[in-house]
Amino acid sequence: MLVNNPVIPAFIPPKRTLMGPGPSDVPQRILDAMQRPTIGHLDPAFQEMMEQIKSLLRYAFQTNNSLTFPVSAPGSAGMEMCFVNLVEPGDKVLICINGVFGNRMLENVKRCGGVPVVVEDDWGKPVSIAKVEQALRDNAGIKVLAFVHAETSTGAQSDARSLAALAQKHGAFTIMDCVTSLGGTPVLIDEWGIDAAYSGSQKCLSCTPGLSPVTFSDRAIAKVKSRKMPVQSWFLDLNLVLGYWQSSGKRTYHHTAPINPLYGLHEALVILSEEGLESAWSRHRAMHEQLKTGLESLGLTFVVEASARLPQLNSIWIPDAVDDAAARGKLLSEFNLEIGAGLGALAGKVWRIGLMGYSARQHNVDFCLKAIRRVLHK
Amino acid sequence: MLVNNPVIPAFIPPKRTLMGPGPSDVPQRILDAMQRPTIGHLDPAFQEMMEQIKSLLRYAFQTNNSLTFPVSAPGSAGMEMCFVNLVEPGDKVLICINGVFGNRMLENVKRCGGVPVVVEDDWGKPVSIAKVEQALRDNAGIKVLAFVHAETSTGAQSDARSLAALAQKHGAFTIMDCVTSLGGTPVLIDEWGIDAAYSGSQKCLSCTPGLSPVTFSDRAIAKVKSRKMPVQSWFLDLNLVLGYWQSSGKRTYHHTAPINPLYGLHEALVILSEEGLESAWSRHRAMHEQLKTGLESLGLTFVVEASARLPQLNSIWIPDAVDDAAARGKLLSEFNLEIGAGLGALAGKVWRIGLMGYSARQHNVDFCLKAIRRVLHK
Repeated sequence: MLVNNPVIPAFIPPKRTLMGPGPSDVPQRILDAMQRPTIGHLDPAFQEMMEQIKSLLRYAFQTNNSLTFPVSAPGSAGMEMCFVNLVEPGDKVLICINGVFGNRMLENVKRCGGVPVVVEDDWGKPVSIAKVEQALRDNAGIKVLAFVHAETSTGAQSDARSLAALAQKHGAFTIMDCVTSLGGTPVLIDEWGIDAAYSGSQKCLSCTPGLSPVTFSDRAIAKVKSRKMPVQSWFLDLNLVLGYWQSSGKRTYHHTAPINPLYGLHEALVILSEEGLESAWSRHRAMHEQLKTGLESLGLTFVVEASARLPQLNSIWIPDAVDDAAARGKLLSEFNLEIGAGLGALAGKVWRIGLMGYSARQHNVDFCLKAIRRVLHK
Repeated sequence: MLVNNPVIPAFIPPKRTLMGPGPSDVPQRILDAMQRPTIGHLDPAFQEMMEQIKSLLRYAFQTNNSLTFPVSAPGSAGMEMCFVNLVEPGDKVLICINGVFGNRMLENVKRCGGVPVVVEDDWGKPVSIAKVEQALRDNAGIKVLAFVHAETSTGAQSDARSLAALAQKHGAFTIMDCVTSLGGTPVLIDEWGIDAAYSGSQKCLSCTPGLSPVTFSDRAIAKVKSRKMPVQSWFLDLNLVLGYWQSSGKRTYHHTAPINPLYGLHEALVILSEEGLESAWSRHRAMHEQLKTGLESLGLTFVVEASARLPQLNSIWIPDAVDDAAARGKLLSEFNLEIGAGLGALAGKVWRIGLMGYSARQHNVDFCLKAIRRVLHK
């Protein structure tokens, strides 16, 4: 043989406490679900489970949208699915940028041949409603308004209800990134009137990474169906994906669904449904309050002002005297604790402490505060 | 709440024997790996595992290509990654179509703005080398030759070595679909001189579905890096993905990798490396010979002529008197045995019996023959 077989043993990962920007700690129930026997993607038993996932996701998103399902790929693919389907070449798209993921939206719009109009806010601030209102007035014919509800790179939450209302007033569709908010803070798709939204499995749903729950309004589907140009992605073309995830009639094979990861997502959503959204939101809020008190008692300060602060993602300034990489390395090697580094403009300047899903619990808050205190020698 | 929480219990799948076109039976070792503790996608321990996966995949593909890794999505996304990166608008692409997946390649080329030139062969036949040679002569300036090594819709294997040699002679790049061949019959990327190839986790690797191993030659990477137009997909842009999967220096966050599914793929590749490729190929061949003898003794006949027949995917004509759906339904409900239906032009006419990976073993062959005998009342 040209290339010989490498001798590599089974991989046994260390047991970490995950308090970065995701993945979050995964409950044993979900890990147990992941290892159940694999069945076929067209098996009647599997199709019944698909219907349950759709129903559980409608609850999580608070929507009656029939087209609500998990994309067979991570959140970035969920984002791309929204843009490639809803944006046609030449469409004017208003993008709100206040962190890494707004920039990624801009990249998506460009690659779809859309014409971007950008409203920028400082990293760590929420999207300015006034600026968006002005931009909608200044730029006639905006087809889509796109914004990030919960910026994972900063921990700022924007006012999705007001942004969606502005879009409706100006006849634009809305695309919302709720990767970090779904399950942690209210995401009210129907009440707000959002047309397309995408999330991730590994944040406040506490599932393993790799799936992106999405939801599309009926008018979004109508827009996709009436496109002049075909969707540029075959894998993400809703017209084709519909044939596999649609609820009525015979399912058509599109691609092979990731069976076992979907078992995991199903269990994550069952857990959320058992707890109830309001309880999950309160728990994230309560754990955040405790963490905040503890961090402030260590002299640490928050990047985001209190009114826009996400309970599930706590960005704090790294104290001047502290070596970022060395401190995070110590947390990992001595405490098996993962917290997040800064991204983009905030790299080296902030830490991002996640309290997402199963990580938003008393044990984690206490453990994290203890570990950070030790590393900062307080 | 607008939408109430549905009361849905945990999903306990039935235990099936998977002998369709994939997913194949997943060994317990792989399922066990899937439920190990989730760690972060930038964790040093995870990055070490990524390097091992790359090394194990190089063995499976028989290549020294440095860019050899699993795409975080199913095989259809692996296909799309090859086309969106290697095809630029206006590029002439020769597509060989002899089943469903050649047609999917054609869809991809159109959506990339490529100019397709099609060579068609009957479903069930291998790609005609003579026709491809003629098409390369008749159409000057073909940039890429694309073909399916092992057509999952029919069970026909094409002569990849000769096709790649023709592409090289005419200065074209090659894209090869080896979704169903990798691990089951020889796939010799470097020896044949293939520039880009994609596979799937759930066929002869016997992992759960959802990941697509890919490999790119250095000259393919050079072509991607020198593109005039940006790659139309952000999620699949190799220029960006390289930053996360490249081996040297600091890894850059691109998207969150599907951690636990990658544990599963790692274990699947360790198993393949332990067995050795030659042994795996022989085992697939031996199990196929037994199945063939048994099926023929039941009066069943093969769709594909012996010389082009894939051992791991056995397409047989459904006897006239037999109701396709009823018979497959009975296999599933009475024997918990899944076999594959016909796709596209062969729907209702053929069954596809998979002997892939862990499903290519004595127990499965005996069990499948017994079940089919009962259902056919022989």
